[in-house]
Amino acid sequence: MNKQRVLVLASGILGASILTAVQAADPKPQDVVDYRKAVYTVVGWNFKPIGAMVKGEIPFDAAAVARHAQYVALMSQAAPEGFTKGSGPDAVKDTEAKAEIWTNADKFKTAMTNFQQESAKLVDVAKAGQEADIKAQFGKTAETCKACHKEFKKD
Amino acid sequence: MNKQRVLVLASGILGASILTAVQAADPKPQDVVDYRKAVYTVVGWNFKPIGAMVKGEIPFDAAAVARHAQYVALMSQAAPEGFTKGSGPDAVKDTEAKAEIWTNADKFKTAMTNFQQESAKLVDVAKAGQEADIKAQFGKTAETCKACHKEFKKD
Repeated sequence: MNKQRVLVLASGILGASILTAVQAADPKPQDVVDYRKAVYTVVGWNFKPIGAMVKGEIPFDAAAVARHAQYVALMSQAAPEGFTKGSGPDAVKDTEAKAEIWTNADKFKTAMTNFQQESAKLVDVAKAGQEADIKAQFGKTAETCKACHKEFKKD
Repeated sequence: MNKQRVLVLASGILGASILTAVQAADPKPQDVVDYRKAVYTVVGWNFKPIGAMVKGEIPFDAAAVARHAQYVALMSQAAPEGFTKGSGPDAVKDTEAKAEIWTNADKFKTAMTNFQQESAKLVDVAKAGQEADIKAQFGKTAETCKACHKEFKKD
């Protein structure tokens, strides 16, 4: 498994154009919300142990980081489908997504692209196996999460 | 993207030994349940439109099938981590997972492996692009869902 292969997978077959992805089966707004929450639950499940390693709470394991980062990166590619128009706070109640996702779509797209790019780099860096580099790239990836949440997610 | 590449990804980097996967950060039982529900939500999100195409409810699109099937296959590799010991109905209330997942672990493992294998085949078949083959393989994959749910999931 080389980095090209991973990136081809992440950006090719699985990629969907942000905000323009329309699910064929025309899901209901609540289904879209359930989906995006699920995507971020999988992201969190995989991101959390990397954070625990970076903080020294559990033993560092570059291979485990690579495996978890891979899922984070894949889910970052799956996320845009979860933000189709009509799935915002005007349509559903139990969402923390702010209306700005749709009213400031370009900025949201940039924030999402940052997440996708930095998590893809985290995969590469994890495979290279240098702990210091992994920690630095984990930080950069985490920053993309925070930046997007700050702007587009309710507290 | 050839089939070897996909299968290497599905069975290699991302693969985790079923029922033996231990998440490094030692998640709480409820976190495990939330994770497995999220995994199957992503599975359903991607499986549903394939079903709609197979049934003729929406136009058939082999490339879309391949993309969705890819996520199903990847999530099938992510699923086992969601069934760690101590995350059953004895530990958490809001789960439809039956205790038999852990008391009849070999059978559950077989059911999970069937799901992984048939969904991986669906990716291959979808890429080959023959509608009749895709429909047949969709059916086989759906059977693995049903078989596992019948045995191991509460109604």
